[in-house]
Amino acid sequence: MIVLLTDFGITDPYVGVMKGVILARVPQCTIVDLTHSVAPFNIGEAAYFLESSYQYFPRGTIFCCVVDPGVGSARRAVAVQTEHYFFVAPDNGLLSLVLEREQPRQIIELNHADVWVDTVSATFHGRDVFAPAAALLALGKPAESIGKPIVQGLIWLESSAPIALANGWRGSVISIDHFGNLITNCTQEHVGTGTTTVHIAGHSIAGIQRTFADVPKGEPIAYIGSGGRVEIALCSGNAARTWNVGYGETVVFETHRAAL
Amino acid sequence: MIVLLTDFGITDPYVGVMKGVILARVPQCTIVDLTHSVAPFNIGEAAYFLESSYQYFPRGTIFCCVVDPGVGSARRAVAVQTEHYFFVAPDNGLLSLVLEREQPRQIIELNHADVWVDTVSATFHGRDVFAPAAALLALGKPAESIGKPIVQGLIWLESSAPIALANGWRGSVISIDHFGNLITNCTQEHVGTGTTTVHIAGHSIAGIQRTFADVPKGEPIAYIGSGGRVEIALCSGNAARTWNVGYGETVVFETHRAAL
Amino acid sequence: MIVLLTDFGITDPYVGVMKGVILARVPQCTIVDLTHSVAPFNIGEAAYFLESSYQYFPRGTIFCCVVDPGVGSARRAVAVQTEHYFFVAPDNGLLSLVLEREQPRQIIELNHADVWVDTVSATFHGRDVFAPAAALLALGKPAESIGKPIVQGLIWLESSAPIALANGWRGSVISIDHFGNLITNCTQEHVGTGTTTVHIAGHSIAGIQRTFADVPKGEPIAYIGSGGRVEIALCSGNAARTWNVGYGETVVFETHRAAL
Repeated sequence: MIVLLTDFGITDPYVGVMKGVILARVPQCTIVDLTHSVAPFNIGEAAYFLESSYQYFPRGTIFCCVVDPGVGSARRAVAVQTEHYFFVAPDNGLLSLVLEREQPRQIIELNHADVWVDTVSATFHGRDVFAPAAALLALGKPAESIGKPIVQGLIWLESSAPIALANGWRGSVISIDHFGNLITNCTQEHVGTGTTTVHIAGHSIAGIQRTFADVPKGEPIAYIGSGGRVEIALCSGNAARTWNVGYGETVVFETHRAAL
Repeated sequence: MIVLLTDFGITDPYVGVMKGVILARVPQCTIVDLTHSVAPFNIGEAAYFLESSYQYFPRGTIFCCVVDPGVGSARRAVAVQTEHYFFVAPDNGLLSLVLEREQPRQIIELNHADVWVDTVSATFHGRDVFAPAAALLALGKPAESIGKPIVQGLIWLESSAPIALANGWRGSVISIDHFGNLITNCTQEHVGTGTTTVHIAGHSIAGIQRTFADVPKGEPIAYIGSGGRVEIALCSGNAARTWNVGYGETVVFETHRAAL
Repeated sequence: MIVLLTDFGITDPYVGVMKGVILARVPQCTIVDLTHSVAPFNIGEAAYFLESSYQYFPRGTIFCCVVDPGVGSARRAVAVQTEHYFFVAPDNGLLSLVLEREQPRQIIELNHADVWVDTVSATFHGRDVFAPAAALLALGKPAESIGKPIVQGLIWLESSAPIALANGWRGSVISIDHFGNLITNCTQEHVGTGTTTVHIAGHSIAGIQRTFADVPKGEPIAYIGSGGRVEIALCSGNAARTWNVGYGETVVFETHRAAL
């Protein structure tokens, strides 16, 4: 089974063609779209999508991830094998969040050109390099058949970890979902167990709730989202659009310690 | 076979993760997307999409439908078995149109928590509750394995039926498709067999045509759509955008009786 | 295996229902979406998508292509068999680019109504005519089972070939992708082997590069795209939006001959 994650969108035939390349090599392959709507060139969002999703897929799944602003340049393409999964991607930081949770067992540089599509373009390695490599793994071929094992470190995303403040944490918005909910880089540990006030874009929200139904329609709410991150939403509304908030917006979690 | 119908959109990994949850339990499952672009929280549109589509799928299909503004609240989650299909959904009216056409044989409340994902979130029951329940049905397990049979009535959508006028019917727009065609809650019976004039948003359209080619490009046309509803379109154009018409817009069908 | 290509978008249940119709007839069928986001009614874009994609799919693939502004009129519906593929589509020019590369072996007019959905609508032949016909081919039935062989010529798109100028070629934009890259109707032969300047929408671009990384971020670039066409982009940007360029925009490739 191969899972695809790209920023190719679904308005063009690009994703369909990748599936053609895979199915021409592995006719029985199950292919699942994680999403193709990563914001164009946004490696950080792709890294978050992968890290919050991969564990729901069956063992043995091959993730073929292509957010690749450096396509055609000297950037490496890699496949990383962990205990239960394979991750195929450009070496640009896309895998860094998932590899904080999964230990690499082997890293392969995709340099066996005989595996690739006959005529490799300079702009579409999803079709020409990544899809054929993932297909070969899906056939059960050893990882060495698609490239050379390497030991050098992979490229890591510059840390986007929250920053500790005297009375809380400062984080940022790392993804905005279809409902306009704002997903931050903070988790349960950053909102603590005391009372928290959330500040974002001139709005203040009291407390962390459990679910949307805990506040009236249209009211703002902060909660631990299904991916384990603190999210901010308008109940039955669209926070990103209503507040005009985008990627990278600052969020402050202010903790109020109980008086002794 | 499982068919998914949600308002999750396809820009996020939500739908992909639901598929992961299903395939981790039923590796051979065929999964089809009906659509994930129900207008957010619009239960009525989801009900219409399901009612106009389900009969084209093979017998035994399991429909997993998640438009769920009440997620995490006390609203029930249910599975309804009919002669040929299973429908899994929150109990919020989403199934009411399809159940006007299909007789329920059994209604199950999804309360067997051991079926669900290990840690159930408060905001993503599509992944945590509905997908695992649908997967168990796809494995051929009895309906009682996912919950307790109930007899209490399901929640019904407030009627959105057309209203009779002295000389016709007043209906409304219940869906707007990709082409900007306006789909109404009226059917053949509301436009009668005589001459009809259609009034919407300050425009009047004479007669019910058979297909787009019956009028010149750019001209308005009313016709019985492929889902059995009266639709209004601009030939090779976009009526919703051109006329700035949205959900709920009033439509009047004025019948002219022939003089004796 | 059936590949779907339409302008139906993915916000409505139309594509899902086509899949239901296919799977009700061929439960084991693999169905791949090439794309459903052809610009509405844009037969030329669909023809380009098909021509630049089909060869990546395995032999025996059936392409079911529905961009069909004439649905319900007297336009013919056809299936064309080539050495390795089947193409099912309305006879409106959609197949003309692919049939410049693949020789037809047999052309069938889809007129066996007993193959279709029971009640054929006047507006949704994707569901009612094309999907059942493609399904029958996927079952391995002979082409004559879905219609009558014909010899009359298919409808051809009016030529959109580039026009030779004294010092180069004048072409046009035939597709705009998800990244805002502008895909032209020109290929390597139109930009020659000498130095070329590209003119579009008041901008001039010097030379044809190999890949995005060859210019700084935000700079314009012309290159041979992965579909073999000359494309124009802004590196890590969106050329269509930034320059407000749409379908049909004129592009001039000016060739500078080296002085002897």
